[in-house]
Amino acid sequence: MELSKIEKFIDKQKVSFICSIDEENHPNVKAMLKPRKRNGLKEFYFSTNTSSMRVKQYKNNPNASIYFYHKGLLKYVGVMLKGKMEVLTDQETKNLIWKKGDIIFYKKGVTDPDYCVLKFTTENGRYYCDLKTENFDIQ
Amino acid sequence: MELSKIEKFIDKQKVSFICSIDEENHPNVKAMLKPRKRNGLKEFYFSTNTSSMRVKQYKNNPNASIYFYHKGLLKYVGVMLKGKMEVLTDQETKNLIWKKGDIIFYKKGVTDPDYCVLKFTTENGRYYCDLKTENFDIQ
Repeated sequence: MELSKIEKFIDKQKVSFICSIDEENHPNVKAMLKPRKRNGLKEFYFSTNTSSMRVKQYKNNPNASIYFYHKGLLKYVGVMLKGKMEVLTDQETKNLIWKKGDIIFYKKGVTDPDYCVLKFTTENGRYYCDLKTENFDIQ
Repeated sequence: MELSKIEKFIDKQKVSFICSIDEENHPNVKAMLKPRKRNGLKEFYFSTNTSSMRVKQYKNNPNASIYFYHKGLLKYVGVMLKGKMEVLTDQETKNLIWKKGDIIFYKKGVTDPDYCVLKFTTENGRYYCDLKTENFDIQ
């Protein structure tokens, strides 16, 4: 599996799934909009609410995974990336991924204290297609 | 939110997502076929390979969540159930959820040692729709 093919696959998906570990040591998962920005397969940026449950969880425990999948008529493809999630609230990063339409979610705009950025950094990944699984590392 | 509506929502989904915690204390997620059987919102049965990574993880740490979601044109609905996952290998349970077509995945049929059952028992849940979230307990 070429990593460039995985990048193309991820770019085609409209939804991503982000996983965290909660205070009771249970895995949690949530569908999110696709990442706003990525650097190869190494870094992914998502926008979210500073007050959200997920932000609290990642501050307590940065261990995370993100997941992309597509179920077609004939085959199913899934990519899980494992790594760490950071919660970024600096204005520079907030500006970086802000889109005009975000005002629906963050009434005070790009400086809204309830708007922040989740930055995921990949350590390794797992690719699934047609009953076959392949692990890969990300440098 | 009425729980019966959540049950109907879950029955409509073709895919479920199951979450576990791996040996390095990272959350993992994987898309699976829909559960083969459920008792209300309390118990869910999935078929899987005894040799799979997920089975190993649940034996080490039964903390789990399962997730169902649907993204429509106008709204997005997600349901996360948190609880425990058991790995069942007794023949009675294996018979319970076996379907003829499973022979594709388990060549030796319903007694195949590589065929087993994941039984999820719910403790509580979280329902998301249209930017609103609601927690609920399952008795």
